[in-house]
Amino acid sequence: MASMAAFIAVTAPNSLHSISNPLRPQLPARLRLAPPPPVPFAVGKGRSTALRCAASCSLIEPDGGKLVDLVAREGPAREALRREAARCPQIKLSRIDLEWVHVLSEGWASPLCGFMREAEFLQTLHFNCLRLGDGSIVNMSVPIVLAIDDAQKRAIGDRRRIALVDARDKLVAILSDIDIYKHNKEERIARTWGTRVPGLPYVEEAITNAGNWLIGGDLEVIERIKYNDGLDKYRLSPAELREEFSRRNADAVFAFQLRNPVHNGHALLMTDTRRRLLEMGCKNPILLLHPLGGYTKADDVPLHWRMKQHEKVLEDGVLNPETTVVAIFPSPMHYTSPTEVQWHAKSRINAGANFYIVGRDAAGMSHPIEKRDLYDADHGKKVLSMAPGLERLNILPFKVAAYDKKQKKMAFFDPSRHQDFLFISGTKMRTLAKNRENPPDGFMCPGGWEVLVEYYDSSAAPQGANKFREAVPA
Amino acid sequence: MASMAAFIAVTAPNSLHSISNPLRPQLPARLRLAPPPPVPFAVGKGRSTALRCAASCSLIEPDGGKLVDLVAREGPAREALRREAARCPQIKLSRIDLEWVHVLSEGWASPLCGFMREAEFLQTLHFNCLRLGDGSIVNMSVPIVLAIDDAQKRAIGDRRRIALVDARDKLVAILSDIDIYKHNKEERIARTWGTRVPGLPYVEEAITNAGNWLIGGDLEVIERIKYNDGLDKYRLSPAELREEFSRRNADAVFAFQLRNPVHNGHALLMTDTRRRLLEMGCKNPILLLHPLGGYTKADDVPLHWRMKQHEKVLEDGVLNPETTVVAIFPSPMHYTSPTEVQWHAKSRINAGANFYIVGRDAAGMSHPIEKRDLYDADHGKKVLSMAPGLERLNILPFKVAAYDKKQKKMAFFDPSRHQDFLFISGTKMRTLAKNRENPPDGFMCPGGWEVLVEYYDSSAAPQGANKFREAVPA
Repeated sequence: MASMAAFIAVTAPNSLHSISNPLRPQLPARLRLAPPPPVPFAVGKGRSTALRCAASCSLIEPDGGKLVDLVAREGPAREALRREAARCPQIKLSRIDLEWVHVLSEGWASPLCGFMREAEFLQTLHFNCLRLGDGSIVNMSVPIVLAIDDAQKRAIGDRRRIALVDARDKLVAILSDIDIYKHNKEERIARTWGTRVPGLPYVEEAITNAGNWLIGGDLEVIERIKYNDGLDKYRLSPAELREEFSRRNADAVFAFQLRNPVHNGHALLMTDTRRRLLEMGCKNPILLLHPLGGYTKADDVPLHWRMKQHEKVLEDGVLNPETTVVAIFPSPMHYTSPTEVQWHAKSRINAGANFYIVGRDAAGMSHPIEKRDLYDADHGKKVLSMAPGLERLNILPFKVAAYDKKQKKMAFFDPSRHQDFLFISGTKMRTLAKNRENPPDGFMCPGGWEVLVEYYDSSAAPQGANKFREAVPA
Repeated sequence: MASMAAFIAVTAPNSLHSISNPLRPQLPARLRLAPPPPVPFAVGKGRSTALRCAASCSLIEPDGGKLVDLVAREGPAREALRREAARCPQIKLSRIDLEWVHVLSEGWASPLCGFMREAEFLQTLHFNCLRLGDGSIVNMSVPIVLAIDDAQKRAIGDRRRIALVDARDKLVAILSDIDIYKHNKEERIARTWGTRVPGLPYVEEAITNAGNWLIGGDLEVIERIKYNDGLDKYRLSPAELREEFSRRNADAVFAFQLRNPVHNGHALLMTDTRRRLLEMGCKNPILLLHPLGGYTKADDVPLHWRMKQHEKVLEDGVLNPETTVVAIFPSPMHYTSPTEVQWHAKSRINAGANFYIVGRDAAGMSHPIEKRDLYDADHGKKVLSMAPGLERLNILPFKVAAYDKKQKKMAFFDPSRHQDFLFISGTKMRTLAKNRENPPDGFMCPGGWEVLVEYYDSSAAPQGANKFREAVPA
């Protein structure tokens, strides 16, 4: 259910003021996440308390002040790096490892300069943030680590620089000043997911069978990571996104993370957010529609189908291409809602976003065993609103929307006429698409719906499993 | 093993400079917890970089600036509170709940003013710290929460103030402005312990069978928590400890947390710390020898035996009573090393300590199933050194000491003559005490050892289980 909940749980910002910390007493009651705070827990300094539109062309600073770029410049430097890599001990990267190399190389995790050493790993696990040299704190909630096994550790010996290669042994990067430390999987999983239930997709894909050591260090990437799947044009780096926002003279950038098709409820939310930002004095707020492109679980709609669907949504005029930038966020998905939503928000600061829209059960999923969401549906936004290192970000929580049978369109839910609203569950929507039936008029633009029907039609795998292989970095 | 490891793993400060953050590049190599940091991870502002002795009588500020005191003043206010409590819905406290009331009431958890509401609980689980009204951060790593079950929740209804009573229905406190939220035990345990292994003592004692809701709020305690076990004289509140340190004109207070008998290795460490503090310019450093007095697991030595043993150590002159304050820390024990050591340190700031000695596997224990320590023995001190909100504390890591057969005393381990040193394991020491055998001369003062032999002699329970009941708050 939850995997589709983000698809269906149409929601809208309660307010364009940052909800900041739930403990801030001056917040209107409906924005409070908890009853009035005990003295002295409240918020002030360190949390933005009002909407901030940037001065034109002056985007929010990346974490740590400077966007990390780990890709070697074309020319002799790159060739020297490649030659050196050929002489180093080599570690073969999994698909997810390579996605993380992509993420790190372009500075999504700025100021992180490579796979985490133990000190960064421990800070991430325990504090969801890292302390910088000047004493300031940046958010970092998800471990970005590289596992190796005993044999690989032995092969590295006391070498300080190692090469990373892809599945076809192509040289990808050098990792230097390495730190090898124990991979306590139990602890990593428990602290990152807050559960040890079996059936966590990322855990089964990337941790359970991984090596018992982690290797951190500084990363130097030989050339930009490409996938050659026809979607690389959407894979804009944070630097490229910043250029694009500046080119458009954005004075506010609001990011919408998703890993599902866009329906009209999402669209309502995004256009309404822009309207409110304009009302509040922004001159040119730009939407970053930012589907996640890395590893997703088998029953999520594959990236290339989602991109097709998003293209239709823009073609059909549901979202305005003039004020929307569609790009792919290269990170793999953890499905660890309150922990991961921080990563989703933090990485978008690095891409220039100063507003972040957060919904119900953000980055969550169904419990693998029990009939419920794995995480409390509100914990994502609550934790996000309190997270150290995200004080500069304006967080826009949703209110629920649904299909309004009277207006025959998606609309913000009005409890005073609740009988007029239809909540279309993820299961219901999938069943409709699988059965080539149409949803109510106005639920999704027809072009987008056709893509979805086409996907489910072409995918004959039982239980909706994904028979399409996702693109692998090439 | 690990339960006795703190007993045996005699260690000493590497340096009296705070180790601060392992990423600080200017630290001498031996103090680094990880290889040289990737730019820009390093430490500066926000971490003390040099030893700090307080100006005489000016102790370190409590977290949040003001020591919390939740005990009603004697007189009409107390009587009014008691009368009101008698009319409120009542929640019966377990022994551990009551220990937390004790902890909260005296301000060990300052600025926390009661059992955690959801916002505080979530911040503790995810960030190990709380944000205050001025935007500053205080450390808070261990959830201090009160569980209730469905029936209790129903009985409370929409009341905003409830009474807390002890096992004999004596009125203890009022909790007000309450916040009731889900008790996700799986998540609480996974994030606090970093494991879901069965056999975690605190989990089995206080969580597994607890209710499915947590109730937070502001606490007003009717009268001071007493145990009437002959040890209340040692139960000094943070305010009383601060008074005592001021009375003694302390210009540095160094805290030593323990839950085991003191042997001469510990004593060496403590006296050596004082010597070094004097060398570095402190005029009157005072040791706070601070045994934990709340819940401990069955095979730890019970509090009243430990206090007997500590008394002997002072009587025998191993520690100097002039420069030592012995008091009981009322907290229960979680055995969640890297998480709990932060709580042990933070609470001592509130008691006036500006130096904190941290050892191998601090607040750790044996793995309940596997033959190893549950936590990496170094993670406690590493995590402590990086913890947000503890920047003001000077953290003193240990180096290992052992029994020096040549000198016939406990001494700091010298690897150049490793054959001269004897590491007496916890098991070995217990076996000696149980068999009424003596350890090597100089391992522990004879008076202290006799107490230990007496304890094991009187405790006939198998596997060293504790047949003595711990004191319960009376």
